[in-house]
Amino acid sequence: MPDKIDISKQSVKGFKAAAVAAGLKKGGAPDMALIVSEKEASAAGVFTTNKVKAAPVLLTRKHMKGGRARAIIANAGCANACTGDPGLADAHRTADLVGEALGIQPQRVLVASTGVIGQRLNMGKVEAAILNLKEALTPKGIPLAAEAIMTTDSFSKISSFDGPAENRSYRIAGIAKGAGMIMPNMATMLCFILSDIQIAPDALQEMLSAAAEKTFNRISVDGDTSTNDMVLMMANGMAGNTALGREDQKLFEEGLTGVMENLARMIVKDGEGATKLVDVIINNAASADDALKAARTVANSSLVKTAFYGQDPNWGRIMAALGRADIEMHESQIDIRIDDVQIVSGGLACGMDAEKRAAQIMTRDEFVLSVDLHQGNFRDHVVTSDLTHEYIDINADYRT
Amino acid sequence: MPDKIDISKQSVKGFKAAAVAAGLKKGGAPDMALIVSEKEASAAGVFTTNKVKAAPVLLTRKHMKGGRARAIIANAGCANACTGDPGLADAHRTADLVGEALGIQPQRVLVASTGVIGQRLNMGKVEAAILNLKEALTPKGIPLAAEAIMTTDSFSKISSFDGPAENRSYRIAGIAKGAGMIMPNMATMLCFILSDIQIAPDALQEMLSAAAEKTFNRISVDGDTSTNDMVLMMANGMAGNTALGREDQKLFEEGLTGVMENLARMIVKDGEGATKLVDVIINNAASADDALKAARTVANSSLVKTAFYGQDPNWGRIMAALGRADIEMHESQIDIRIDDVQIVSGGLACGMDAEKRAAQIMTRDEFVLSVDLHQGNFRDHVVTSDLTHEYIDINADYRT
Repeated sequence: MPDKIDISKQSVKGFKAAAVAAGLKKGGAPDMALIVSEKEASAAGVFTTNKVKAAPVLLTRKHMKGGRARAIIANAGCANACTGDPGLADAHRTADLVGEALGIQPQRVLVASTGVIGQRLNMGKVEAAILNLKEALTPKGIPLAAEAIMTTDSFSKISSFDGPAENRSYRIAGIAKGAGMIMPNMATMLCFILSDIQIAPDALQEMLSAAAEKTFNRISVDGDTSTNDMVLMMANGMAGNTALGREDQKLFEEGLTGVMENLARMIVKDGEGATKLVDVIINNAASADDALKAARTVANSSLVKTAFYGQDPNWGRIMAALGRADIEMHESQIDIRIDDVQIVSGGLACGMDAEKRAAQIMTRDEFVLSVDLHQGNFRDHVVTSDLTHEYIDINADYRT
Repeated sequence: MPDKIDISKQSVKGFKAAAVAAGLKKGGAPDMALIVSEKEASAAGVFTTNKVKAAPVLLTRKHMKGGRARAIIANAGCANACTGDPGLADAHRTADLVGEALGIQPQRVLVASTGVIGQRLNMGKVEAAILNLKEALTPKGIPLAAEAIMTTDSFSKISSFDGPAENRSYRIAGIAKGAGMIMPNMATMLCFILSDIQIAPDALQEMLSAAAEKTFNRISVDGDTSTNDMVLMMANGMAGNTALGREDQKLFEEGLTGVMENLARMIVKDGEGATKLVDVIINNAASADDALKAARTVANSSLVKTAFYGQDPNWGRIMAALGRADIEMHESQIDIRIDDVQIVSGGLACGMDAEKRAAQIMTRDEFVLSVDLHQGNFRDHVVTSDLTHEYIDINADYRT
């Protein structure tokens, strides 16, 4: 499992980063970040499945095809989504400007944006900022980059892992932004992961995809999916390790998954208006698909999420969510627990005493809601938050 | 189209109804209703698709098999859901008691419940109430029944239609309860429709199912589905018409659909905490399935619904919802309108002036959000509400 956050571990060999206030966010906070690898890095990426894809998603997927990258340029304040061909040209121009400033091929530049949908980037501000970013690059810049990509986030998100491989030590450091599974006009979730490990692009892509499936694809704040989501990784090989053995590979994958799991949980914790983090676990489903469908349906139910907020072990809502999840189930075989307190046994209430103890547990910031379907041997989970007044405030008044 | 509500039209030939306070709801409001037909009626029903079905749903589906009924007994305050075999025995006993009181077969009694999930009915109270209900039966009792089945509803819901058939006049009168597509522990949506028309059970069932698909299955408050939903209809033939001709049948179907449409819109209007009623229309989808999927995804999006509440024509959220709806679409072909004001053309913003005019329209209680996908010739719609602070209050604090 990854180490605790440690400011001394927020640099990675051969990487520099910087942040500046380009004037794209209201209020003058830092809103552009640049991350550069000294050497060409193996690159991998996971992108939104939304059919409406922002211009930087289209461009970065193309640049990612070679499996190599040198830099990531990111901005907050403007998603550059639903901006058509002119928006795509802006994304290209951004990569070109970074390429010129650093003396590298624009195809080796990955572009990411987050912010309001449907507005063009102010390219004058972007051009000026890129020159300032180049000047500000420093090995200690990763935490600054984490702050610059924040939108409605209330804290910046960093996690790291140190591991040995073939008698060399390497580091994985990740930063993320996101406060909600999506805010489409703030384009929720960005995650950039850096490592000095030596690894081939194909292997990196495979591990990143698998880890994203276990982590970022298992969180939910409101069930929406952004037009701008992306997870990008660069591994520059400067740890000097040779080809990874089976054990080393396993450890690296665990470390990477751990870093992404930490970041994913931070995103839910910082979910718009969220006051609670809840692990929804489905045990003994008839299939893997059923386990995930059940977990997602319960975790996304507005009624279940408002009950979390109300600290009410309202298991009828959980039963009703399971009943519409389109899974194999029998009401009379369902058990439900809040942490270790069983509130439903064989589809029936365990009584007011159990509910009172469960309500007590639900006053905590974090707890586990587990369901046993008794249909088979498949298990899955989704990490979710509660649905609160502040979510309504943030999202009703966002653009005003 | 159905007539305006008219108190004189709330009786239907050969039907009597009554309501009493049985003590199942907190606060002593009427909470049980009985509706009786003088003659055996053709009966039809539409039931929840939730796999967790309340005891009255299981029983009434069984009693409905013969296509004949004499009475509907309904209670609020207790859903009799997730109560296992004892709960099913309670539902049976309720039908038996009504049968005894009225001197009719218990198989001709339809049972409906709404209220908290997971609690047993107080059968002592139910038994006493049934005797009182019998005494109180009156041809003017339909509006009283409409009030007795309310839970968090803020107004009772009645709609009626008068039509001619074979030189006889007949009436359709419907009552409904529901304030939310679901509140699982209040078991949302009940609708009882009465008519004195003469019609065979099979034909009635076909028309009722078709009308439910166009009306109750096209509304959404929070995307959840209740364990107790049911639409029941009895037609007792006392209008004295002979077999319906093609035109008569068409008119009856239109009248029935109109009554159900009125009731469905009242349910959305009374949606938990709702301040706005929005018709989400999808035009020119590639398939019927796509049209409905797109309408449902937009209408259920928490982000779109909070933007309605904020009176913000935040079309980026609509584009993002369409993009994850799993339909055939091309971003560059999408047009979006609020009433007659176009805010998106070919996937791009129509500008701030259009958005200002749209924001002005969104201050109204009702408006239309229409999307043109330009992919084919299929159209569908869903009626939805906004997502507000009051929804959170009602659902977070419901059981406390």
